[in-house]
Parts: sequence; structure tokens; C-alpha cells
Amino acid sequence: MGTAGKVVKCKAAIAWEEHKPLTIEEIEVAPPKDHEVRIKILASGVCGTDSAALKGKLGTKFPAILGHEAIGVVESIGKGVTTVKPGDKVIPLCLPQCRQCRACKNPNANLCVKNDFGSNSGLMHDNTSRFTCKGKQIYHFLFTSTFTEYSVIPEICIAKVNPAAPDEVCIIGCGFATGYGAAVNAKIPPGSTCAVFGLGGVGFSAMIGCKIAGAGRIIGVGSHKDKFPKAIELGATECLSPKDYDKPIQEVIREKTNGGVDFAFECSGNIDTMKAAFESTYIGNGVTVVLGVAGPNDKLCFHPGEVMMGRTIKGLPYGGFKSRDDIPKLVCDYMAKKFNLEFMVSQRLPVEKINEAFELMASGKGLRNLIIF
Amino acid sequence: MGTAGKVVKCKAAIAWEEHKPLTIEEIEVAPPKDHEVRIKILASGVCGTDSAALKGKLGTKFPAILGHEAIGVVESIGKGVTTVKPGDKVIPLCLPQCRQCRACKNPNANLCVKNDFGSNSGLMHDNTSRFTCKGKQIYHFLFTSTFTEYSVIPEICIAKVNPAAPDEVCIIGCGFATGYGAAVNAKIPPGSTCAVFGLGGVGFSAMIGCKIAGAGRIIGVGSHKDKFPKAIELGATECLSPKDYDKPIQEVIREKTNGGVDFAFECSGNIDTMKAAFESTYIGNGVTVVLGVAGPNDKLCFHPGEVMMGRTIKGLPYGGFKSRDDIPKLVCDYMAKKFNLEFMVSQRLPVEKINEAFELMASGKGLRNLIIF
Repeated sequence: MGTAGKVVKCKAAIAWEEHKPLTIEEIEVAPPKDHEVRIKILASGVCGTDSAALKGKLGTKFPAILGHEAIGVVESIGKGVTTVKPGDKVIPLCLPQCRQCRACKNPNANLCVKNDFGSNSGLMHDNTSRFTCKGKQIYHFLFTSTFTEYSVIPEICIAKVNPAAPDEVCIIGCGFATGYGAAVNAKIPPGSTCAVFGLGGVGFSAMIGCKIAGAGRIIGVGSHKDKFPKAIELGATECLSPKDYDKPIQEVIREKTNGGVDFAFECSGNIDTMKAAFESTYIGNGVTVVLGVAGPNDKLCFHPGEVMMGRTIKGLPYGGFKSRDDIPKLVCDYMAKKFNLEFMVSQRLPVEKINEAFELMASGKGLRNLIIF
Repeated sequence: MGTAGKVVKCKAAIAWEEHKPLTIEEIEVAPPKDHEVRIKILASGVCGTDSAALKGKLGTKFPAILGHEAIGVVESIGKGVTTVKPGDKVIPLCLPQCRQCRACKNPNANLCVKNDFGSNSGLMHDNTSRFTCKGKQIYHFLFTSTFTEYSVIPEICIAKVNPAAPDEVCIIGCGFATGYGAAVNAKIPPGSTCAVFGLGGVGFSAMIGCKIAGAGRIIGVGSHKDKFPKAIELGATECLSPKDYDKPIQEVIREKTNGGVDFAFECSGNIDTMKAAFESTYIGNGVTVVLGVAGPNDKLCFHPGEVMMGRTIKGLPYGGFKSRDDIPKLVCDYMAKKFNLEFMVSQRLPVEKINEAFELMASGKGLRNLIIF
């Protein structure tokens, strides 16, 4: 390959600061250092987490290249990289799997300590960036930064996948894994009643997971009624809009379910919706799985008796999947038609239209918009 | 039996109102109605929940006969009672098991809908009382009311146990089942690190459970250092007093455990201790089990990200045990010396000294005081 070991100049969407539209720029992408991989991005989903980052909800450093839900091809590898080679089709992983740390060694955990969620360094593991634009250093985002033609990613954040995988499998890399995994890894007993709050990509993926887990009843909760038919198609047995009731939706759900649902999946990130999800679960055994990203000053508050009597609140980051181990398996499952993904793709857009993709998401219209490079 | 079908006059400790000492009175105990059982109490533990009730934390109706952790012998049975007969040794159960309701039919739940925790009716299921004193109706407490020589209890709140069981097995009926069950039913992987907050009867029982579940490290947390040797004897591998540190105990624990414990059992009911327990768990997979009874206006508050990253907060009321099914088995386990209970008994006192038992508990001295009739 002619580019290996050299700086690559390419097109990227730069988020210069919070709350501002991205701009398309020419950037320089340095070669991968030890244990790093440079990949050519083929397609990238625009996810709620990118939007949350742009709104300053995550403590992201700017200027940054956002994007974390992609599929690409390895262009070159740094020293010490053994698990992928140039030409491999790969999915970048915002959750690393180092296979060395406490979480990686625990079969019941997956929050690898090498993650950048809490620290938000915006840098590679050596505390430097591989991106520059107009002479300025540009920050990485969650080790992925996929709104660019080329990105550099740690090897521990790369899953090698089936070379025949189509572009929409990029969604597996974040939104689908998060929602679907939360449901299939929450140990839902067959026949359970589930509610999914938030009818976006994560919520729909959770519904697919609930159905595959054998849930007997799946209640979709959202205020965009135009999404109800899609929800029903994917597995929801009914859909409710809080706007249709004079009382809180949790009361409505408790009445309709003999006291509450067995499982609630909160996929909106709205703090009031989280509370509604929690209160919609059955007091004696209801499980609330928190998936949505809340604002920095949000607090979830309840009387301890609300859990002491048997409820559970839990998180399953990345759907509870071990990222490098499980993402390739999910791609195989998709290729074997175990679940659908194409339904989630609203539009395929060139990177020049990336702000339109953010606007479409904010409007609640459509599910995933894919940026195609 | 000469007393069957007749009103029995006997001695009882009456809680006339909140925050006042109990007084010993002669009361009348009506015969059991359909599906009810009248028992002669042999021994009754004085538990933190009785104290919480007396302090008005639980919404208990007064005047009442408190007490819910006892062993007794069936004196007479009402119509339709099939599972016990006069002469049977039994443990009264503050958590019923009707075997008909949603929770009873669910293998993963146990909060029978026939419980009186939330409603605090202080009455039998027909909304009447079986107790009178000086012409006044006296309220029941959690269907048990064991601070009396005779009590009437629903059949669904009675577990028949080994006739050779000694008086200390009364502790199994609440405190021991709650703490021990929380640990053995929390699915602790062998080798896990656990912390137990609160070194009372429930906390010590949780430690026994952690040890039997195979925990690798058990950290006892409490401010009464005179209890540390007992904790070590029962299974704690170390004990910490928050008073010994300038920083919050959760920070100390996180430092000592490579980021936090796998499981925290909160047995104090203090809201700040609950927060400390939660924050002492590992962000990626820590489980907090809430066992203590909080005050009516307490709120547990946290940023949703604190659970979204992988933590769990849950309740296991009654330790997750199905009361009628599991209490007899626990008594068998005790008779087979699977665990110790006698260590928990500080003193055996006559009912006339019941206020002394409450005072001893409030002072943090000793564990369980048994009232012997």
C-alpha cells in the first residue's frame, strides 16, 4: 500500500465547538503508532451519543471528530498489531476490550478500564492525537472518530468482521449492540412483559432483543406515533404515547400489566422518562435497564423502599457485550438473517450532508442516517 | 384443648403510641377465623424493624402489638386450615406466601400481594383485629404480632418447622433470612469481594451468607468496633470503621479493592450509608443490595451514569426467600449445623424487660435480644 507509514490527507467533518454545525475540512491523519490501526471508513451511523457529545452533555473536548458507529477497512497497522491486517473489514469499538483488566477478566462485566467514557481525554492511549486540521490538533472521540475518511484506532477497539458484511452493519457497533444486548443479556424469562421507553435506534434494537429473548408482551412507549407501525413490525405487541393520557404513563402501564412490567428498557436519556420507566416496573421483581445518556446535572431519586421491596435498576453498557468477542458474532447473526437492520436505515447521505443527519435525528424523524464515504 | 374456640386472656406488650415505651397488659385474643391459626409464642426476637415501627418510620397503626420474629406452637386452627395442626412448632412469617398471586407464581419473586408492608392496615385479611385490651381494639403488625403470649396469624403466614428446633431459630423468621438470603440469593460468584454495611443481626447474617456463597473477601463496615471480633469470627476478612478515616469510607474501600467491591449489602437503613454502599461498588459490575429500612422522607439520589456504566441496585425482600417454602429448610440447615445462630443471641429476657431489649438495640450493644414467654 502506498500510504502505509505516511500521513494521509482526507476529508472529515469537524466539530469545532459545542452546539455548532460540523464543517467539512481537509485533515491530516498520522500513521498508526504501536498497537494502533488506521482504517478507511466506509460508512458511519449518526447516533444519539454523537448528538449528546455535540450538546456538551458528555464532557467531550473540542475541536473533535465525532462518530463512533462505523464499518471500515484496515489501511495500515502499527507495530505489535496481531489481530488485524490491511484489507480486513472491521468495526471500530467505542468500548475497548483489552483482555487484561478487572472487567475484561470478569465474565459478568465488560467495562474495560481502557475506555474513555469517564475521562473524556479525546486522545489515544499515549495521550496524543493522530488528527490535525489547519495546523491545529483535533481531538479523537471515544477512540473511534468515524466522521472522517480515515481514522486511527487502538487495536483493542477493533473487531474484525465478515468481509461480506454490508454497510448497515455499522449500526451493530453501537446502537444495535446497546439495545439488543440489553434485552438478550438481561436474562428475561420467556413470557415476561417488557416496556421499551424511547423509539429510536436503541429502543427498536431493544425490542428486537426482547422478542428474541421470548418476551410475551412488549410495550413500546414514545411520543412520535408515526414510529408505532415500525415498532409493531419489529416485535412490539402494543405502543403507547404519554400524550394520550391525563395521568403519568407509568400509572397507565401499571394498570395495563397487573401492577407493572417485568422489565423496562429506558432508551431516551430523559430523566423524567427514566423515572417513568422505573415506576412502570412491578414492585416485587421489576428490572429497569438504564440505556439512555442523561444530562450532566440529572439525578435519579427515589425512596429506597422502591427498590428494597424487590425492584432492580441496572446498567448494561454496550448491551453487556464483550466488544471484540461479541461484535463479530452479531455480524454473523445478521448475515444469517437472525435479525433485521436495514429497517433502521432511514437515509444514506454523503458526509457533506452530515448536519442534515443530525437535524433529522433531533426532529425524531427516521432512525439511523448513515454517512457513506 | 380446652381453649380452642374460646377467647384467650394473656399477657402482651402493647405499643400504645409512637416513641413511647411498651407496657405489659392483659389482653384478649379471639379464636382464629377461617384460614387463621392461633399460636402460643415461645420466643420472639426484638428486631430493628420493630424499632423502626415504634419510631413511626413504617406508618404502623397504634395501639399495636409489635414483634414479627418468633417461634411458637399451634394452639388452635380456624376452618379451612390444612397445613398445620395444634401442637405443631411454627415460625410466623411477616411475608406471606399465598401461592396464588403474581409474585408467588414467579420463581424470581417473593413479594406476595397479601403482604401488609405497604398498606400497613394492622388488620387481618378480613380487615378486623383479633386483639383487645381494656375494651380497645389493638392493631396487628405485619400479620405476626409476636410480643404476646398468644397471637392469631393467617395460615399463609405460618411455616411448620422441625419440632426439635430450639428457641433461637426465631431469628430465622426475619433478620437471619433477610441478611443470609440476600447474600446466598444474590448470585455471588465464588471469589467475589463483598462489603457489608451495618453490623447488626442482618449484617452478620449477610456475612455468614457471603462466606457460604464463597466470597473471597468480606469487608465489614460499622462504627461499633467492639463488634469487629464477632464479625471476623463469622466470616469477615477485615472490618473498617468510617470514624477512622478523614475521607468518605466509600473512597477508602475503592482504594483497597482495586476500584470497588463486587457486592455491597446495606443493612443499616441510614440513607448516607446506602449512598456509601452504592459508591463503594465497582462501576463496571458492582451490585448494591438494599436491606435496611430507610426513613419515610429519605431519598436515594445519583446520576444515572452511575448505574448506566454497569452497576446494579436491587432489593431482595426477605432475602429473596419464598417464606413458607424456604423457612423450614433454613431451620433444617441450622439443625444440621450449616450455620450458627446462637452467636446472635445477646440475652434472653422475660417480656417484662422488653423496653430494655429495645434500649440495648438502640445503643448498638449486642445483636438480638430474645423475649422468652
